[in-house]
Amino acid sequence: MIYNYGVLMKIGIFDSGIGGLTVLKEISKRLPSFELLYLGDTARLPYGIKSKKTVDKYSENNVRFLKSLGCKIIIVACNTASSYSTSLLKRKFNLPIFDVLSAGAQASSKSGAKRIGIIGTSSTIESRTYEKKLRKIDKSIKILSKACPIFAPMIEQGLSKKNYSKLIIKDNLQIFKNKKIDALILGCTHYPLIKKNIQDYLGSDVILIDSAEEISKSLYDYLKLYYPNEFSKIPKQRKIFLTDKSTYFNSVIKRIFNNMDFEIKLVDIT
Amino acid sequence: MIYNYGVLMKIGIFDSGIGGLTVLKEISKRLPSFELLYLGDTARLPYGIKSKKTVDKYSENNVRFLKSLGCKIIIVACNTASSYSTSLLKRKFNLPIFDVLSAGAQASSKSGAKRIGIIGTSSTIESRTYEKKLRKIDKSIKILSKACPIFAPMIEQGLSKKNYSKLIIKDNLQIFKNKKIDALILGCTHYPLIKKNIQDYLGSDVILIDSAEEISKSLYDYLKLYYPNEFSKIPKQRKIFLTDKSTYFNSVIKRIFNNMDFEIKLVDIT
Repeated sequence: MIYNYGVLMKIGIFDSGIGGLTVLKEISKRLPSFELLYLGDTARLPYGIKSKKTVDKYSENNVRFLKSLGCKIIIVACNTASSYSTSLLKRKFNLPIFDVLSAGAQASSKSGAKRIGIIGTSSTIESRTYEKKLRKIDKSIKILSKACPIFAPMIEQGLSKKNYSKLIIKDNLQIFKNKKIDALILGCTHYPLIKKNIQDYLGSDVILIDSAEEISKSLYDYLKLYYPNEFSKIPKQRKIFLTDKSTYFNSVIKRIFNNMDFEIKLVDIT
Repeated sequence: MIYNYGVLMKIGIFDSGIGGLTVLKEISKRLPSFELLYLGDTARLPYGIKSKKTVDKYSENNVRFLKSLGCKIIIVACNTASSYSTSLLKRKFNLPIFDVLSAGAQASSKSGAKRIGIIGTSSTIESRTYEKKLRKIDKSIKILSKACPIFAPMIEQGLSKKNYSKLIIKDNLQIFKNKKIDALILGCTHYPLIKKNIQDYLGSDVILIDSAEEISKSLYDYLKLYYPNEFSKIPKQRKIFLTDKSTYFNSVIKRIFNNMDFEIKLVDIT
């Protein structure tokens, strides 16, 4: 057992944009005494429709930036970057790297579900990373995955309160109802924001796996083991860096995360 | 009058992504004998929610790339880039630059409409460039503008055939019906693809201004004047360059532009 005394522990979280703030929020709640730095690559978002090569390049840029600020642990809060780039990042950087996708896959296998649904962006679903991870844990699991690329813009634009959002949810999730899944992995950082709407449609029997929640649990366990002395109730700083700022992003942040208090800085990382 | 004999006329068109292919398609139809090079900045799309500073930088990159390939005329096919960056591009590059926004504004003033609606991305609407251009032409025009950021992903994902697309269209355009506009500027390259749906909702009395069509008319007039000898019926090459290729983009191109025949090349322009 290695204890780390008096180390200033900075945790770096990155996402393609602002959806990953759901992850920052969860980690922030569970680990108030750790310094959290969030990078949203808003100038180049979304990653979810782009190629592996492009997402790899962007993810590497992001980690390099967070490392340069002294982050000692990296959280890949973007599902697309998690599925495409985690192994590359682990090879390139000598840092513990936690990714939302692994956290989600582990949690769904622990849930005991045998018929698991996965929703995400086009790239996340296409990469089949969730499937591969789940199959490694248990070959007998039945998996059904579906890209729901309209969900992220719908959530960002505050349209999930509109009457037609029910039709959009039904149109995208009906297949999971028909196939009677036990659990659904919310494979995009935006989706926890419509968790209730999804639960209402699928019914309370279906377990929803929220990777923001899961990754904050894994991180908590890791830090309890290796950095037990850094836990306290004194809240540490949270910093948010964005590669682009616009009225659109500001309004989305305000609409979705209105009770979060932080300073936002614009950075150029390319 | 200057005639240009025997000049190989290459026209460069750029857009944040693949929506601008509506512009390529229109220009291609009207000007078969001109060589057309299209650049879609798919690695950094969308521009429509990003800041002026970021869009300026990207637009400059794009023109530099097209110029390096020998383009002698530049078409800014992206409404956001048109509204934010046209004047910068005119200052930086010694080339004739046509932009969809000016073409759209001119056409709507020519139409005689006095109550004009404008729809576009968040950035296009926020920039108020259409408004400023229209007011310069005629101060008495009544203008009503509204960002409809859900339209582009809805169109790209082929959802405009879904029953709920009618509700989305109604939700976004109802205000124009209530205010009894005479003309509506389709201020985003994606929108001509749902022209019929919009016309069905607004009724046949409302003139729809399609900037893809308008810019190809302006370009035709310009070339007839300065390059009359380059007109022929022998079709020239069309080349498409994308800064990122993914299954998502391929499927969108296939779905939307299935009757277009071209070769797609991946390029790194940064």
